[in-house]
Amino acid sequence: MFDDTTPMIDRVRAVLPQIKANAPKAEEDRMVPAENIALLKDIGLHRAFQPKAYGGLEMPVPDFENCIALIATACGSTAWAFSLLAEHAHQIALYSKELQDEIWGDDPDTLSSSSIAPYGKSTEVEGGVRFSGEFGWSSGCDHATWAILGFLRDDAELGKVYSFAIVPRSDYEIKDNWFTAGMRGTGSKTLVVKDAFVPNHRIESVPALMTLTSAGGALYPDSQIYHVPFIYVFASCFSAVSLGIAERMIELYTERTQGRVRAYTGAKVGQSIPACMRLAESTHQVAAGRAFLEKTWAEMRDHAERHAYPTPTQMAFWRTNQAYAVKMFVAAVDRLFEASGGSAWFDDAEAQRLFRNSHMTAAHAYTDYDICAQILGRALMGLEPDPSLF
Amino acid sequence: MFDDTTPMIDRVRAVLPQIKANAPKAEEDRMVPAENIALLKDIGLHRAFQPKAYGGLEMPVPDFENCIALIATACGSTAWAFSLLAEHAHQIALYSKELQDEIWGDDPDTLSSSSIAPYGKSTEVEGGVRFSGEFGWSSGCDHATWAILGFLRDDAELGKVYSFAIVPRSDYEIKDNWFTAGMRGTGSKTLVVKDAFVPNHRIESVPALMTLTSAGGALYPDSQIYHVPFIYVFASCFSAVSLGIAERMIELYTERTQGRVRAYTGAKVGQSIPACMRLAESTHQVAAGRAFLEKTWAEMRDHAERHAYPTPTQMAFWRTNQAYAVKMFVAAVDRLFEASGGSAWFDDAEAQRLFRNSHMTAAHAYTDYDICAQILGRALMGLEPDPSLF
Amino acid sequence: MFDDTTPMIDRVRAVLPQIKANAPKAEEDRMVPAENIALLKDIGLHRAFQPKAYGGLEMPVPDFENCIALIATACGSTAWAFSLLAEHAHQIALYSKELQDEIWGDDPDTLSSSSIAPYGKSTEVEGGVRFSGEFGWSSGCDHATWAILGFLRDDAELGKVYSFAIVPRSDYEIKDNWFTAGMRGTGSKTLVVKDAFVPNHRIESVPALMTLTSAGGALYPDSQIYHVPFIYVFASCFSAVSLGIAERMIELYTERTQGRVRAYTGAKVGQSIPACMRLAESTHQVAAGRAFLEKTWAEMRDHAERHAYPTPTQMAFWRTNQAYAVKMFVAAVDRLFEASGGSAWFDDAEAQRLFRNSHMTAAHAYTDYDICAQILGRALMGLEPDPSLF
Amino acid sequence: MFDDTTPMIDRVRAVLPQIKANAPKAEEDRMVPAENIALLKDIGLHRAFQPKAYGGLEMPVPDFENCIALIATACGSTAWAFSLLAEHAHQIALYSKELQDEIWGDDPDTLSSSSIAPYGKSTEVEGGVRFSGEFGWSSGCDHATWAILGFLRDDAELGKVYSFAIVPRSDYEIKDNWFTAGMRGTGSKTLVVKDAFVPNHRIESVPALMTLTSAGGALYPDSQIYHVPFIYVFASCFSAVSLGIAERMIELYTERTQGRVRAYTGAKVGQSIPACMRLAESTHQVAAGRAFLEKTWAEMRDHAERHAYPTPTQMAFWRTNQAYAVKMFVAAVDRLFEASGGSAWFDDAEAQRLFRNSHMTAAHAYTDYDICAQILGRALMGLEPDPSLF
Repeated sequence: MFDDTTPMIDRVRAVLPQIKANAPKAEEDRMVPAENIALLKDIGLHRAFQPKAYGGLEMPVPDFENCIALIATACGSTAWAFSLLAEHAHQIALYSKELQDEIWGDDPDTLSSSSIAPYGKSTEVEGGVRFSGEFGWSSGCDHATWAILGFLRDDAELGKVYSFAIVPRSDYEIKDNWFTAGMRGTGSKTLVVKDAFVPNHRIESVPALMTLTSAGGALYPDSQIYHVPFIYVFASCFSAVSLGIAERMIELYTERTQGRVRAYTGAKVGQSIPACMRLAESTHQVAAGRAFLEKTWAEMRDHAERHAYPTPTQMAFWRTNQAYAVKMFVAAVDRLFEASGGSAWFDDAEAQRLFRNSHMTAAHAYTDYDICAQILGRALMGLEPDPSLF
Repeated sequence: MFDDTTPMIDRVRAVLPQIKANAPKAEEDRMVPAENIALLKDIGLHRAFQPKAYGGLEMPVPDFENCIALIATACGSTAWAFSLLAEHAHQIALYSKELQDEIWGDDPDTLSSSSIAPYGKSTEVEGGVRFSGEFGWSSGCDHATWAILGFLRDDAELGKVYSFAIVPRSDYEIKDNWFTAGMRGTGSKTLVVKDAFVPNHRIESVPALMTLTSAGGALYPDSQIYHVPFIYVFASCFSAVSLGIAERMIELYTERTQGRVRAYTGAKVGQSIPACMRLAESTHQVAAGRAFLEKTWAEMRDHAERHAYPTPTQMAFWRTNQAYAVKMFVAAVDRLFEASGGSAWFDDAEAQRLFRNSHMTAAHAYTDYDICAQILGRALMGLEPDPSLF
Repeated sequence: MFDDTTPMIDRVRAVLPQIKANAPKAEEDRMVPAENIALLKDIGLHRAFQPKAYGGLEMPVPDFENCIALIATACGSTAWAFSLLAEHAHQIALYSKELQDEIWGDDPDTLSSSSIAPYGKSTEVEGGVRFSGEFGWSSGCDHATWAILGFLRDDAELGKVYSFAIVPRSDYEIKDNWFTAGMRGTGSKTLVVKDAFVPNHRIESVPALMTLTSAGGALYPDSQIYHVPFIYVFASCFSAVSLGIAERMIELYTERTQGRVRAYTGAKVGQSIPACMRLAESTHQVAAGRAFLEKTWAEMRDHAERHAYPTPTQMAFWRTNQAYAVKMFVAAVDRLFEASGGSAWFDDAEAQRLFRNSHMTAAHAYTDYDICAQILGRALMGLEPDPSLF
Repeated sequence: MFDDTTPMIDRVRAVLPQIKANAPKAEEDRMVPAENIALLKDIGLHRAFQPKAYGGLEMPVPDFENCIALIATACGSTAWAFSLLAEHAHQIALYSKELQDEIWGDDPDTLSSSSIAPYGKSTEVEGGVRFSGEFGWSSGCDHATWAILGFLRDDAELGKVYSFAIVPRSDYEIKDNWFTAGMRGTGSKTLVVKDAFVPNHRIESVPALMTLTSAGGALYPDSQIYHVPFIYVFASCFSAVSLGIAERMIELYTERTQGRVRAYTGAKVGQSIPACMRLAESTHQVAAGRAFLEKTWAEMRDHAERHAYPTPTQMAFWRTNQAYAVKMFVAAVDRLFEASGGSAWFDDAEAQRLFRNSHMTAAHAYTDYDICAQILGRALMGLEPDPSLF
């Protein structure tokens, strides 16, 4: 569809109108429309974090997150689900070559969804585990054929070790139970696994993944992206979505307000000083949040390119900066939405969808600012990490 | 159903469980369930502001608003629509006896809805006006048989004068177009009037209503409630609803949080210090907001009982205090909802309904704080009122 | 000076101009001017909580706090120090009759200051303790002849028990070390006690004082004020001061802004919409905070009059509501001060003094909102009280 | 003192301890200590924006502002006054070569202070104007020998035109009247000019300076810094100071809190969760504000290097981004200071100085966010600029 020299951000721009047109359908279907996935696959964005060995792009974090933010201006749900589908390649690249071949060997366009809270139950057997569980909120699962699932694996020495099993589509069923007031189009349904066998080459512990000591940890020594723990890339997605939603809200508020009159008096809202001041303050807030994220993303890129493993404090910032930015974006959206009048609340008004979706970007376990403030605050105060805060 | 000595607040308490059980149905039907209206009529709350001459209660403002806040803990939409249906009696009591007889003569239980932005078009004719228009957002209209509608009436001397016509159900049709992300159960649909004749005895100007110089302004000289301009009672309803929603959110957050564990770590959220602090801060904020409203309501009651017409500054406070309180309530709800996790976002979770409804209590033209801050600020700074701020 | 029928609030109003005129002197001298103390003694306000048995007024809490708030509009430091000097009578009334006679027997106008953090060191001896320590921040100490001092007393059964010793002026020296950026006029200097003997009749434990089981707990069974634990009256003082400062800031901002022009453009700030909106929002915020305090004070009065000992939850509210109100007041003052321009920062500008003093009302251990939010939040969430939060 | 290869930021670091040690003296003397000026001259920072033709550095904006922020961690007053003294070279570089020679010809280390509000009175005479006026708040004036002063010059065609006259030390006297609650060490005293003759080569209109069409506008065509209007560099100083103060507050709060115990209970504040969360949130906020400023500064540098004159919208951002950042920094400082306890309020506690100085960085006409929000909001909403907002 594009020659290789077209920057990815321009490719995204080209498919944006169709993705935007599908946004109501995404909410109605409670999943990302297949057309949106096809469009984004056509431009190759799903290959962002896939190893070059399988035709992937090994794209720097800032380039990827900018694309996600742009998609979120058109459809927050698509941006959310697709960013995760794409990001999972970064995790898979740390698994055994055997698993990577299984997933991408025949079809390098294969996508994986996830559900990483440790809800799985496992029994150790020869060569792997028997595995069961219900795994909620697997965004984009309708478009994936593998799933990354969390559980606490029994380890003779270490006790319970937080781990991820990766299982093929034949091992799980999808429960159509995603009925929510926000991000309704992400299709974050529940995956049900009943006593599947998962061989060891499809399992890694989170500590191994985090320290790049997993089976595939040394597969791509020259890579410019895999030397930063995947979790910070994962965590970056939500804030990129939140950023795009907020940027769209600013644009929409400007358009709507310029033409709006007050019902009771006919006064032109676009000439109202408070309306202008809200626009300015939210614009500043989102611009500051964007600058903060860009700087954080650039740090990740630089560490990855230099193969420099981050310090604990650096990781505390990467884990938490994104949640602070999300807080800024939600506040910016609220400031504009609350001054948009009753007409903004109708089902066919884009504003209320942005409002709902924006708030939900702050509802993920990774963007929970109470958790993040504790993680960073303890690190800065010189206290030990609290394991209950992940 | 009740003997006369049962306080109204206790009667409301008795019907609350049924109203609460109907809350999902209200959203689904996009209107207040008929059962809820029947229950509230049974206890007589719709008579709150009706003249005693028609069997009404002429209830003091604080008593009424406390009932509305309590209803809102069960169903915000019912509280919103019903409070307006009941409040309209306060306006009707200022119209001609002829109109009051038409409305309440045969059936003193008759309800009226309204749409007061001046969207009507009128032509002066002998004895009244020919009247047309589309009037949006008439909460509770499905349960009313009269409607109070705004327009700018031509006056030979004064030019356009903001006025309300009151028309019977036979004069208008209801468009079923209330599809919104909040207060979905209020059924605030559009009323369509096509060239109806409205006789003069069914029309009053807003200035006459505000200064108690309308046709019925002197009908009830001994009343303890009609000497305060109706508009401040009208304006009080939204904040009472907002208060009830916030109080329910505090209760719900406490219940949910006490039992909640974090997905990733199993940590008990109810023992988390940030969770406790959010609860405390929102509880303080709502308690402060309630105290502020109670004091404001008591001032209205006292003025009405003393037949003391309020000063311009006093009116600026009554017009705007409620909007400030709503701001407090919305902030309190947000603080709790944003720490309620993803599970609070599901369609069947009461929390997300409270969140949506709470925000919408701040979206009415009367609770727009940018407008209110300008109204009060100009008054306090000694500037002339700005007529574009109503 | 006044006949008995003049309400105390009117007496305060009469001496207010002189107190206001002395406000700069209070800062300069770093203590409340003697004239201010004399004026307030003349009107009898220091007798507010003194037992009627000694000629005291046993004044209801709301009446007293309203006087303090009014004084704070003139001089925050005087209001702070004097409110504490007067409040201490409420504590002394719970001690032995012997001590009360020592303090008030000869001179019923005697004042006491305090320093209640448990900084004292004691050794048990026959009939009492040998007592030493440095006690910081004893507001108004220059005008007192007794001091209430905190320590942990050794108890054979209970271990260390938080207690207060009351010692005469001859037992301590005053270190002139109160050099601060706020509330500079309170003269909250350090008291130094060197090995004084304190007989048992001058010592009570905090638990006994809190549960009204101290030596004097049953001395005034018909009193309308002593049946509420003194600590909530103590805690109320800071917020009353904060309220008065905020109310004065609103008045001052209005005056200054009405006449202010912007240096660069000559634009009239008093006609600026943002300036009006700030005025409105701070006015609403302070009015809401006042309503919250008034309701809280009324609860204390009602409990005291009914001799109803408060529940733990009620006490958690009384302990913490005041800190939330202070937060509101400080925010209201900030909103106005930060829009007051550079000229408000000069030493002779009242605005900057209000700003500094307002912030300091939030810096007392009793108004620390992090502590208060935890106290109330734990109570509401059903957790055990945390003894590290007093 | 340094060889040329030492980066300026490292030179600043070297003199920082002495500047910090002088901070109390700066407040006491109500002016920047001469030693601080000498230290900063020694390292050449005052040459930052001086033309290379006079031995100046023509330093990029980001490099300079980073130095100012660093100085502000040691002494806010020194950073404030010195940044302005240095920045004025950027304005002088736009004046006639004749004036530049007068100022720097004999002594290229000469400094200039300013007072730019249009308070001057002028009468047109042959070859210039007779000039008088009192000019408040000229930061650092004690160390300058020229002054840049604002007035409205009569123009036959254009009426009053906002202009700056530059006058030598012999033309004005300094009134020692800088007594303030914040930034007390800036020595921002009043300059008094009595009927001085100012020749035309020492006068430029603000429009000419802004559009680079002044007498010296084309003197340095190859410069990498002068193609961006000086006013945005001027405006950047306050936020750089505010940033440094906030970064120091974070450091200081961490140190103090780690060792702090609560007076009443002995609880260790450094292990308190709310204390950690405040630290994290302020750290995030300051980091986000810094990222926002760095991006803004980089835009200025890039425009200057490309000789690209900014668009009106770009200028609206440069004019206002800094004020939004200041708002963030003040909020961050408040969050920490308000949890620092009463001990932080003592005159010898650095915390209270940071608190006072931080708030004052938001009190300059250029950091007034009400003005800035209107400027940017109008630009984004598509309204005409309001000339009363400069």
